[in-house]
Amino acid sequence: MTAASLPPSPRTRVRRVAELANHAPSTLYAIVDAAYLCHIAFQDDKGSHCIPTACWRIDGHLYIHGSNGSRMLKQLLHDTDVCVTITHLDGLVLARSAFNHTMNYRSAMIYGQFEKVADIGQQHAAMDALMEKLAPGRRALVRGGSAKEYAATTVLRIALDECAVKQRTGGPLDDAGDMAHVVWTGELPFTHGHSPAIADALNTSEMPVYAAAWRTESA
Amino acid sequence: MTAASLPPSPRTRVRRVAELANHAPSTLYAIVDAAYLCHIAFQDDKGSHCIPTACWRIDGHLYIHGSNGSRMLKQLLHDTDVCVTITHLDGLVLARSAFNHTMNYRSAMIYGQFEKVADIGQQHAAMDALMEKLAPGRRALVRGGSAKEYAATTVLRIALDECAVKQRTGGPLDDAGDMAHVVWTGELPFTHGHSPAIADALNTSEMPVYAAAWRTESA
Repeated sequence: MTAASLPPSPRTRVRRVAELANHAPSTLYAIVDAAYLCHIAFQDDKGSHCIPTACWRIDGHLYIHGSNGSRMLKQLLHDTDVCVTITHLDGLVLARSAFNHTMNYRSAMIYGQFEKVADIGQQHAAMDALMEKLAPGRRALVRGGSAKEYAATTVLRIALDECAVKQRTGGPLDDAGDMAHVVWTGELPFTHGHSPAIADALNTSEMPVYAAAWRTESA
Repeated sequence: MTAASLPPSPRTRVRRVAELANHAPSTLYAIVDAAYLCHIAFQDDKGSHCIPTACWRIDGHLYIHGSNGSRMLKQLLHDTDVCVTITHLDGLVLARSAFNHTMNYRSAMIYGQFEKVADIGQQHAAMDALMEKLAPGRRALVRGGSAKEYAATTVLRIALDECAVKQRTGGPLDDAGDMAHVVWTGELPFTHGHSPAIADALNTSEMPVYAAAWRTESA
């Protein structure tokens, strides 16, 4: 099963409000690429955990990283059934009846198993891709990772093969019997933006172009 | 154990970067109240799931709701060890070395078990509170929930008693040996804002004050 087709599996078939389901890889990739964070659900002997962590995509995989000592990363190497979810909330949808109020959003749920990026070349490439996502071009300007830092860091990836993608856009869907009820209907949209870069108190360098441009970019 | 004290339990004690932990209820409540969505981790016979859903707070409980037919809600009534997480991403933190780059964020992880809000009066009060959160004052203007709608809806709540709260703010923490490395350091902040309300195509009413004011409110 490849990301080019993304047919639903028994656990990714969208059962409730199935018309919100979208299985196009371009939609999945856009949702993933717009996110800096995902939430990962996994189990250990204390029960379920839902942990936010930085994420980024290379081709058909989602990557995460952390210290070798991270309880989550150690557990994820053994857990065969994890779920990683990314959600963007786009607006509140105000309907004519209380129970038809809803929200506009984009979400991707990724099922599967993480694997360790053990090859040192692939580990470097993965960390470079994260750096490039955070601030394009900055990688060449900072002090790069040392052998000790790479050795202390675990990079994991999960294939974007078994995914449930849902999106809702537009206005409310009222019951036919409510259409005569007089009340304003529409959407209250959220924005995902940037405010001006803040130089650190210990900074001694001119603000680079990418930091100065940050406030004007759409997130 | 009450929300007034919030001592860490074995699963909420923040072990990595423990200085980011904050156990003040006011901090927890502010993080919860700033969110419209949470992510819920739970288990069923297919493995772990991480599902985004609307949430709101009344006093010391977090509430969610959905159709009686929801697989998640049915499972949550039986699952004794769920984890609900809310995360707000506030900025990218750019350091002098690649591996000291990080993010500023606020997160709350809530552990425990959901209980059904079975009392019809409490169910109404909970749904009213959700409506009030979405659009204060609007509840009196819309067609209220019918007995049939209430009967088809399950409201659950989880006590905000066993929580792990983490926050990071401010600039990078570079290694002493990197301070002579010349590169701009600081934060690229995210904003969580509103854009102007969008009237629905079928709307026939004047835009109310709360919708007109939406764009100028901070999210």
